[in-house]
Amino acid sequence: MFKIRSLVTALALASSVSVASAWETLPTEAPAPADNATTPAKVELGQMLYHDPRLSSTGTVSCSSCHNTMLGGEDNRPNSMGVNGQTGGRSAPTVWNAAFNTVQFWDGRAPSLEAQAAGPVTNPIEMGMKSWDDVVARLKSIEGYEQPFEKAFGKDAISKDNATKAIAAYERTLITPNSPYDKYVSGDKSALSAQQIRGMEKVAELGCTHCHSGPAFNGPGMFQKFPMIPDGYWEAQYHISKDKGLAEVSKNPADEHLFKVPTLRNIALTAPYFHNGSVKTLDKAVMLMAKLQLGKTLTKEEIADIVAFLNGLTGEFPKQKMPVLPGTPGSTFN
Amino acid sequence: MFKIRSLVTALALASSVSVASAWETLPTEAPAPADNATTPAKVELGQMLYHDPRLSSTGTVSCSSCHNTMLGGEDNRPNSMGVNGQTGGRSAPTVWNAAFNTVQFWDGRAPSLEAQAAGPVTNPIEMGMKSWDDVVARLKSIEGYEQPFEKAFGKDAISKDNATKAIAAYERTLITPNSPYDKYVSGDKSALSAQQIRGMEKVAELGCTHCHSGPAFNGPGMFQKFPMIPDGYWEAQYHISKDKGLAEVSKNPADEHLFKVPTLRNIALTAPYFHNGSVKTLDKAVMLMAKLQLGKTLTKEEIADIVAFLNGLTGEFPKQKMPVLPGTPGSTFN
Repeated sequence: MFKIRSLVTALALASSVSVASAWETLPTEAPAPADNATTPAKVELGQMLYHDPRLSSTGTVSCSSCHNTMLGGEDNRPNSMGVNGQTGGRSAPTVWNAAFNTVQFWDGRAPSLEAQAAGPVTNPIEMGMKSWDDVVARLKSIEGYEQPFEKAFGKDAISKDNATKAIAAYERTLITPNSPYDKYVSGDKSALSAQQIRGMEKVAELGCTHCHSGPAFNGPGMFQKFPMIPDGYWEAQYHISKDKGLAEVSKNPADEHLFKVPTLRNIALTAPYFHNGSVKTLDKAVMLMAKLQLGKTLTKEEIADIVAFLNGLTGEFPKQKMPVLPGTPGSTFN
Repeated sequence: MFKIRSLVTALALASSVSVASAWETLPTEAPAPADNATTPAKVELGQMLYHDPRLSSTGTVSCSSCHNTMLGGEDNRPNSMGVNGQTGGRSAPTVWNAAFNTVQFWDGRAPSLEAQAAGPVTNPIEMGMKSWDDVVARLKSIEGYEQPFEKAFGKDAISKDNATKAIAAYERTLITPNSPYDKYVSGDKSALSAQQIRGMEKVAELGCTHCHSGPAFNGPGMFQKFPMIPDGYWEAQYHISKDKGLAEVSKNPADEHLFKVPTLRNIALTAPYFHNGSVKTLDKAVMLMAKLQLGKTLTKEEIADIVAFLNGLTGEFPKQKMPVLPGTPGSTFN
């Protein structure tokens, strides 16, 4: 994963490179890795596991607690709240369209949805399980999980590998197409207002799309330095540089402040903003991105236009059935 | 509510009265109060509110966090975990078939689902909102709630009264009919095993059905004293008498240790047991109920038969769609 670092950093710094604004609609299907084809049985099992709070030590926190599939795919908190009311230092990224991220987590430390799904479960301040062996033992103790695992993966299939594969398969279905933006790009010129179209043009003109490009507005590079132009005034308010991003994992000074480029889709639903959730409104987030990434000061009108455009990136949420989770045997979560 | 106390206590103490075991199936519809007819618009809104964690101070706890509609209607914990990891002293009762309870909460302090729904939201260790005024203000700030409230109640309808009515209307649809027991009583004699039928007969013979009677096994009285026959040995282990039940609310010594008679339906899914969640398994719960309520010592075989019967009370869960909650404006929950 870290091999592409230099190239990515180089791309990130090459802000003068001209990038064509190829406006792309969101695919309605996400590509799956060769060893985890998306099947209905895996998706069904994955939906159950994703919503099952028994994957946490206290029995109170599911994947959906922080990446809420009834909302904008996260929790609208600066930092999520894990088991026993603990909070970490980062804001939960949305699960909607996460299938289109090249890497996962704010620091991009997971190369796939499968790898990502394994992390929070045993993070002591997130879901707090001591080990995946404990998770597997618990899943095996819930009689009703045997059959859906078998249906998805074959006999005696309850394992970390299969649980994370199922969750990833489910997440690959969490796609929100047909936003006003997608309709506009597909030819419905009335789908965006005049203000939204001005905002769309401004986003390209300013260079936001150097990083926020492609169908999910999260490419072409995987990582970007943030802030590009550190500023003591804003730092004092929002503490953006406190988190060293990828370097927190790699311990390599060259990776300092590199973050995964987050999708802009459904961004109107995912306040507060940035990796540390320090910015409460989209207006302020747009203003700060222009200052800290592009060294530009936007007018109020420009900000309003861009925010209007970003509101046009809210898609249609798939209709889901509520999972029925298998019953708990006589045991407790303290 | 407290007026019926003496009658109830009298009934509770009259354990020598012979009660005919009229085995009844679960109705598929719950009666609604005159001022809150169950309508599809109310149920839909109620389902949204029930699953919305933004009804809590931290944005992390919804009604469904502790009364989980994907599970046995509760959280399988001894005590639920509210905002900021706080825990109280009682175990969450199941929401499934709560519509058939005459009173709500373990201490029966709420006379209706509507009254119950108002409680946890402003309880400091449950959902932690400072006041219902704050809840209403927050709901009004979520633009997408205006329309479903209007559809259910008319214009400018966002209020505590309507929010709790909608939640109650939704809860009245959370009914689990067609358990093996119901099928057996309806004439399918193969629906229960020979062991389950022995357990069913034993339940009547022992007198469990003095209190656990009617279609939801939670009548005819509203309250029952627990324990009826205090026992130091078991008290030291399970601290059953520590909680004074209705007297904690009424402050009337005559109400000490009076609790709502809980439903037995889906009991196999709702470990751990009793108002304080102190008993981990159904075997032990049955053993203790016989000792502490009836003064009887059951054999292992009798316990196994009764537990087998109780497993036959697990019903069919209605198919639900996953609600899509309206987006959060740019604001945060700390």
